Amino acid sequence: MTAADPDGELLDRVFLARVLEPGDEVGGRWVREVGVREVADRLRGKGESFGGVSEKRWEGLRARGRVAEPGRDLEVAREAGARFVCPGDTEWPGQLDDLGDARPIGLWVRGLPSLRMWALRSVAVVGARACTEYGAHMAATLGTGLAEHGWVVVSGGAYGVDGVAHRGALGAGGATVAVLACGVDRPYPRGHVQLINRIAEQGLVIGELPPGDHPTPSRFVQRNRVIAALTRGTVVVEAAHRSGSLVTARAAQRLGRHTMGVPGPATSGLSAGVHELLRGDATLVTDAAEVVEMVGEMGELAPDRRGPVLPRDLLEAAARRVLAALPGHRAARVDEIARGAQTTGDDAVARLYELRSLGYVERHGDGWKLTRQAMTSVWGGRTPC
Amino acid sequence: MTAADPDGELLDRVFLARVLEPGDEVGGRWVREVGVREVADRLRGKGESFGGVSEKRWEGLRARGRVAEPGRDLEVAREAGARFVCPGDTEWPGQLDDLGDARPIGLWVRGLPSLRMWALRSVAVVGARACTEYGAHMAATLGTGLAEHGWVVVSGGAYGVDGVAHRGALGAGGATVAVLACGVDRPYPRGHVQLINRIAEQGLVIGELPPGDHPTPSRFVQRNRVIAALTRGTVVVEAAHRSGSLVTARAAQRLGRHTMGVPGPATSGLSAGVHELLRGDATLVTDAAEVVEMVGEMGELAPDRRGPVLPRDLLEAAARRVLAALPGHRAARVDEIARGAQTTGDDAVARLYELRSLGYVERHGDGWKLTRQAMTSVWGGRTPC
Repeated sequence: MTAADPDGELLDRVFLARVLEPGDEVGGRWVREVGVREVADRLRGKGESFGGVSEKRWEGLRARGRVAEPGRDLEVAREAGARFVCPGDTEWPGQLDDLGDARPIGLWVRGLPSLRMWALRSVAVVGARACTEYGAHMAATLGTGLAEHGWVVVSGGAYGVDGVAHRGALGAGGATVAVLACGVDRPYPRGHVQLINRIAEQGLVIGELPPGDHPTPSRFVQRNRVIAALTRGTVVVEAAHRSGSLVTARAAQRLGRHTMGVPGPATSGLSAGVHELLRGDATLVTDAAEVVEMVGEMGELAPDRRGPVLPRDLLEAAARRVLAALPGHRAARVDEIARGAQTTGDDAVARLYELRSLGYVERHGDGWKLTRQAMTSVWGGRTPC
Repeated sequence: MTAADPDGELLDRVFLARVLEPGDEVGGRWVREVGVREVADRLRGKGESFGGVSEKRWEGLRARGRVAEPGRDLEVAREAGARFVCPGDTEWPGQLDDLGDARPIGLWVRGLPSLRMWALRSVAVVGARACTEYGAHMAATLGTGLAEHGWVVVSGGAYGVDGVAHRGALGAGGATVAVLACGVDRPYPRGHVQLINRIAEQGLVIGELPPGDHPTPSRFVQRNRVIAALTRGTVVVEAAHRSGSLVTARAAQRLGRHTMGVPGPATSGLSAGVHELLRGDATLVTDAAEVVEMVGEMGELAPDRRGPVLPRDLLEAAARRVLAALPGHRAARVDEIARGAQTTGDDAVARLYELRSLGYVERHGDGWKLTRQAMTSVWGGRTPC
């Protein structure tokens, strides 16, 4: 319990994130029924077990509880540049609540932008680790194209399709989020440490696992539900039958998100899983414009559906400075905007995508400009000369 | 007017097939409203023009009528081994009536099998002339696979996908129908003369155009409506945007037939048209089994929907002989069946696919055997020892 965490909920949630596995719906139900404090207290040994849980399982959780050090987790995370975002926080992406009792206890977040803002206009691009040249080409094209359309590219940071999609977005000066199945301070796979660190600088690296924790097969599966829930839709680029990407796609379908697939040769085993999806309810897409057509169909007012569009006075100071740095009547490049706002390019990009989610700005070729609605709200309808 | 054509309707229709262009819905309406005889007579100059037709157009039709020689058309066709099948004939495929006033006046048919019987269990496989290696591979695989499943492969006899699909069916000892946009005695393209003649021996070559007539762009389009209407469904293998194969697919959709597409790389212009279809109502298919799953969904009793299943005594003599040559308790190969029925292999195949349509026989690996229902009807339920 600190000034920033007066009732200790943050510490309780960090504790629970260490004790409960991601996606544990039983634990999620306890939290819903008796609250975070009570669940944490009982797992710390200050109360009885819950009904319906085996003694063995309860002992396993208690054993985890005995070694949990939430204060230290926060400390290690802070050193790695990570914060812990909880349900109810300003930065919490409300669409994760669709997961019900499987909603994450909280999310570790590395990076400048607001996760909530970025998630509003995000699309998942996932697929095979051992993708073909064709799959890599399509992932890169989609990553780049979605970024150019002003959409945030979410993926799992893995080899193959995931990594190429992230790189495509980064290369286009765009926004990307890596959702990890391990501690955000401990990027996996090791060969992607540089890529994931770069994403943490230009975008966001998030995950449910506490600092230092490692991935397991079930954690990959649970990570996929976060990717599915966080985004407006999931595009599968290449996936064999029984691939993890299909798990993400099916989770997206269950959550009522758009599910899309990039077709490939009928002779390619790495397209077989995608074709299976496309024979069901998924939509065939061949480029970023077709993806945007699907996920963007709610129109530019979409942010209204996820939370209030903030009036300008309620924007954070950093976002207000970037907004003020945009010229009134033409597009500007990120470096010009960053200079005007007296900040770094990465911070400017972070804020621009937040402002994009709020309907203030839009991408225009290589640069950014105010939207028509923003012109009215920022300049009071008068075009400055 | 002959013994075989007591009221002269055959000659009248052969005349009209020479005068009216395929798919002429105005001419089709005249036929529906006043009958074949009256339309033919007026076009022969024995009556007035119809209302609503320009004098110029009427004169054009009359000019065609003046040079038409239906007796000679029948003679030339007979020499080329072709017959003229009219609506109402036993061999007329009733599903063409779905075309309404665009229903063909009649069809020129080369080949042994009954067009009506074969069309009952047929699928169209169409696609780009300038297909890729991949497209050719898929067309061959589908042609072979559909034949192996006991389905008749219908296509347009063109270079590329069409030809490969026909060859796939022929190569599997299967049944195939080429629908031409020219006279059936004058195969087009010239490079496919051998292929089309082979189809006329082992299968059927059909078309609306009178002997000696040549294809035009609009005749290709009209030919496509016949392919779409004749079959249970249309599979497009490769097609660029605005390809003729898409015309066939859309015609199939309008007629309530199944429309299917084989996916390809999103980067391939020759798959772009197929992907366009698949983003609409068409179903993605990757092999023959998936096609059969679609078109066969009405079950094995499907022939009931198109016409009566003939009792054995009403089968043509040639079909009865082939049926009698099938062993009661095991599969037999075509050459064995042909020997038993004292006929050629091609004739045996023709009859076997007719019997297949009627539910008497089914393919079994490389051979054919009686269906369970046929065992009852042919052997009175007693398995011969």
